[in-house]
Amino acid sequence: MGAFKMRGAANAILSLSKEERQRGVVTHSSGNFAQAVSLAAQKLGVKAYIVMPKNAPQVKKNAVKTYEGEIIECESTPQAREATANKIKEEKGASFLHPSNQDEVIYGNSTAAIELLEEQPNLDIILAPVGGGGLIAGTALAAHYFSKKCKVIGAEPKAVDDAYRSLISGKIETNTTFATIADGLRTHLGDRNFPIIQKHVEKIICVEENEIIKAMQLIWERMKIIVEPSSAVAFAAVLKNKEEFATKNIGIIISGGNVDVKNLPF
Amino acid sequence: MGAFKMRGAANAILSLSKEERQRGVVTHSSGNFAQAVSLAAQKLGVKAYIVMPKNAPQVKKNAVKTYEGEIIECESTPQAREATANKIKEEKGASFLHPSNQDEVIYGNSTAAIELLEEQPNLDIILAPVGGGGLIAGTALAAHYFSKKCKVIGAEPKAVDDAYRSLISGKIETNTTFATIADGLRTHLGDRNFPIIQKHVEKIICVEENEIIKAMQLIWERMKIIVEPSSAVAFAAVLKNKEEFATKNIGIIISGGNVDVKNLPF
Repeated sequence: MGAFKMRGAANAILSLSKEERQRGVVTHSSGNFAQAVSLAAQKLGVKAYIVMPKNAPQVKKNAVKTYEGEIIECESTPQAREATANKIKEEKGASFLHPSNQDEVIYGNSTAAIELLEEQPNLDIILAPVGGGGLIAGTALAAHYFSKKCKVIGAEPKAVDDAYRSLISGKIETNTTFATIADGLRTHLGDRNFPIIQKHVEKIICVEENEIIKAMQLIWERMKIIVEPSSAVAFAAVLKNKEEFATKNIGIIISGGNVDVKNLPF
Repeated sequence: MGAFKMRGAANAILSLSKEERQRGVVTHSSGNFAQAVSLAAQKLGVKAYIVMPKNAPQVKKNAVKTYEGEIIECESTPQAREATANKIKEEKGASFLHPSNQDEVIYGNSTAAIELLEEQPNLDIILAPVGGGGLIAGTALAAHYFSKKCKVIGAEPKAVDDAYRSLISGKIETNTTFATIADGLRTHLGDRNFPIIQKHVEKIICVEENEIIKAMQLIWERMKIIVEPSSAVAFAAVLKNKEEFATKNIGIIISGGNVDVKNLPF
């Protein structure tokens, strides 16, 4: 379905017992994880319940329906999403899958960097965007266990720099605004991934909104890949710090194209 | 640079002698072939002169400049383009490369279908768009020589159905209008590729403008690949004839993303 979330979702469902799979899985997401769970579940013959805010864009609902996920609508608040997911968990016995703060999801995500390191074992640095922390934690584990020298750097929009501040303060910080175009990165770190990030991520680079849009457009125009703003954040961090990265072998995880092509920022 | 034209351009330059390479290459194109010649020449240490109409979009000029092609501007008529290219050919001794009607370009293009058949030897049909005829001719040669059963079908916008009419009349037909969004397919067949197409292409399917746009949007949204309208024409032909293709193993050549992302048809 076009994003790394497929890796985490597939690994999480594959980690369930036969009995658990028969009762289905549930998640709350209106983004890539919703599509990933739907498609992974479909491929494995598992029922997927997707809790989504009523006001989620139709294009995102359609994508979930294509993959046969059952959408359950709720109000557009974190409380409503969690309550609705919990209700389905209890009523159907479905297993809850978290988009970023669950070991099996983190391990699944790590395969992106593992495969990158298999192809390019000489990397000095891998950069990945930081939202809920599931990708950067998986990437950090991959670099730690599958490379002797590769460091991992996160990239985050300045407007939602909770991970940047969390690494400084030593505890999970939150954002008071969500004013970033990188809608996949408006989430906070969790208790499963934050300790991994603290231990294995070198640092986090923050980028401005216009830098994200510029990086996104450059990827579209030159690589011909449809990436959403969230996916362009790590590349934006490299463009912003050319001197720092000029002499290094750099890998960048670019993933996720959940974008409304009728409503683009350029 | 994101399109099959790279294959033809690279093969054509690689087919030149050392002396010819030293004098450079010249082509007239404002599209993918301009970028392909520029990049292939840059990689092989060859000078590339690109003749382009004055009014070509800046985004296309910039792409050529990125690949170190030297742009020579001319008036926006076929006559002016040919005259300007001929002048450079004479002045610099540069070898002229034709975007579609040259054997080395056709052979280079054929590698797309050869690689597809290596991966999927069981294909019944390969579809490709038809513009100048360089891709469909190469594809037809590939299927003829590298598969026992694979047939090749071309796809063309109804608005510029010169190839469709040429196959019926047995001679190269031209268009009186160019009113298609598939700007890469506004060109005519040539004397090198038409005989190959006559001999080895099963038929040509024509599609409407709205079918092209719909197919393009579906590729963007589901495959996350930036394709230009011309690239979506073959997929549009399949969507239009689902029953005909339903029980067959189908390969579709999707290539070319030379699109102004600030000016999209959806």
